[in-house]
Amino acid sequence: MNVSQSVSKKSIALLLDLLAQAHRIAIVCHARPDGDAVGSMTALAQVLATRGHDVLCIAPTAVPAPLRWVAGFELVKTFSLDGQYISRELPSVQLFFHVDHNSLSRVDPQLEQALRACNAQRVMIDHHLHPESADFSLCFSRPQSSSTCELLYEIIHRAWGKPAISHSVAECLYMGILTDTGSFAHSCSNKRTYEVAGTLVELGVDVPAVRDHVLGSYSLERYRLYGTAMASKTDFFANGQAAIISLSDEFLSSAGFSTGDTEGLVNEPLTVQGVIISALLSERHDGGVRVSLRSRGHAEVNAIARAHFNGGGHPQASGGTLYMPLRKASLFVRLVIAEAIKTGDCFPSR
Amino acid sequence: MNVSQSVSKKSIALLLDLLAQAHRIAIVCHARPDGDAVGSMTALAQVLATRGHDVLCIAPTAVPAPLRWVAGFELVKTFSLDGQYISRELPSVQLFFHVDHNSLSRVDPQLEQALRACNAQRVMIDHHLHPESADFSLCFSRPQSSSTCELLYEIIHRAWGKPAISHSVAECLYMGILTDTGSFAHSCSNKRTYEVAGTLVELGVDVPAVRDHVLGSYSLERYRLYGTAMASKTDFFANGQAAIISLSDEFLSSAGFSTGDTEGLVNEPLTVQGVIISALLSERHDGGVRVSLRSRGHAEVNAIARAHFNGGGHPQASGGTLYMPLRKASLFVRLVIAEAIKTGDCFPSR
Repeated sequence: MNVSQSVSKKSIALLLDLLAQAHRIAIVCHARPDGDAVGSMTALAQVLATRGHDVLCIAPTAVPAPLRWVAGFELVKTFSLDGQYISRELPSVQLFFHVDHNSLSRVDPQLEQALRACNAQRVMIDHHLHPESADFSLCFSRPQSSSTCELLYEIIHRAWGKPAISHSVAECLYMGILTDTGSFAHSCSNKRTYEVAGTLVELGVDVPAVRDHVLGSYSLERYRLYGTAMASKTDFFANGQAAIISLSDEFLSSAGFSTGDTEGLVNEPLTVQGVIISALLSERHDGGVRVSLRSRGHAEVNAIARAHFNGGGHPQASGGTLYMPLRKASLFVRLVIAEAIKTGDCFPSR
Repeated sequence: MNVSQSVSKKSIALLLDLLAQAHRIAIVCHARPDGDAVGSMTALAQVLATRGHDVLCIAPTAVPAPLRWVAGFELVKTFSLDGQYISRELPSVQLFFHVDHNSLSRVDPQLEQALRACNAQRVMIDHHLHPESADFSLCFSRPQSSSTCELLYEIIHRAWGKPAISHSVAECLYMGILTDTGSFAHSCSNKRTYEVAGTLVELGVDVPAVRDHVLGSYSLERYRLYGTAMASKTDFFANGQAAIISLSDEFLSSAGFSTGDTEGLVNEPLTVQGVIISALLSERHDGGVRVSLRSRGHAEVNAIARAHFNGGGHPQASGGTLYMPLRKASLFVRLVIAEAIKTGDCFPSR
């Protein structure tokens, strides 16, 4: 097992060695794939296909519509839809790539089991903290990268040179950087992110077009859902330092809600001056209430999610689940957040 | 008169020559200042103040609250508020800088008159097309720059070297690039924009903090206004290719509307798949209806604004004014847009 943070000569040599022995390759991303997962999977798939490999991409669950436009997407199969096909194909795979996740547990449990039953070697390419490197033959792990796509750019560049980054590969990589930094809003405190993005643009990425695909392909229902949530379903509390949006299953059904339509909504209250913590509660069919938390500035929310909502996550983007009626859950979340602000528990780093 | 697109040695020499003869300097931005106007004005002000100049910044009209946090803002006076003070000071000014506008007519008419009465030389630093260069002694005009702040970075760098770009100057410049590209969504098809942004980040710009100031300082009223407009005041028409938001003076008053709160709202419908033209109609106290138009992809709207709404602007961001009741204006705008889409008139470049 080799964990490489620097995309060293040695790790690239190992990678090329593994590839030389493998014709049939599978690239796996994490469940509920985002722009960085899809971008890194399809970018790598294109590069490997061009080099004569037989490539299968595996998304554990469905890829959201705004991410399906990228080149290389025709190689993607979805485990939750094509599980039988994928299970049949797995034994013939000679090398696995795991992109944008640091542990086999980030894929579907059934898929994880099937993957663990395979004998082929596994390469990880990821920018999340704490990789479970024991599961992989080779780990490219660089948490200081804005995104897996930024790290993958360095790997491709090192392994095959700039000509390997075609216009359509560049578009996939740009999509990952754009989405994982929230349009250059966070996780991009390193000059290198901008240098890579600039090089991709130089390679011909049509920035407004990528933006249009990714952030301009929402449904009319989502537009109305956002509006109603902002107009009448957001409460501000704790002297305007916190906000909570509560969406009942009834409302979500009546609004013609599709999976993914509430994605990002929890960030909206953070555009209001003074708000440092935002919570989104969505009632699920099974009676559970999904709690999403976001914070900004020095406020952190993962300890709150861990302690009170059976969850966890990043300091400024966490979540969990409560098993109680929505109204009760909403009161509970308010209490917990108001208390955390009052006692200063949400400022652990101060 | 010298128009320089390339920030040449000669133009920098001319600039330094003009500065050597001037102690008292005024920097003027355009009316209704945006992030690029305020960013370039305060960045230049700091650099010149550090070099011993006595600097006055003049904003023709009030600077929006989310832009007031920048260093150097203490040097800014607003003509619409402090007109008498500014008028008294103007005769002592030995050199004027005009940033982020290409014509004296982009400032308040009264201020324009006062400026024209001054004998001092004028330097323009701007990235808009078609500068009225006859009014200036020296023009730095580079339309291929994402923003005036990007161009100003090159000028400062060339004239005084990288050490002149302090951390707080870098923040001002980053704010201009961030806002004028809509968070790296448009006007950044050039590698150089990313290189400059990366250098500013390397100089210590706290990206999430800038973003928080600029895009996270909105009022609660604006949040509700956006929600209501999206939930119940947006109509989609022309087979889902166009959207119109109509806001009556009564609604705007009842919502606790402040100047600037509808800024950006016209872009929201363009996040919906298939929408290529969006219009925002806001009723004004004087009975006029302000029409804002936005488009994406290949669609253009400035010809529509010119022909039908007594206005003009950029191909994808234009506006005008109608003098008729809101309901009638709304019907008229729909008809005009539906017709432009039907006949293909909004695709002049095809």
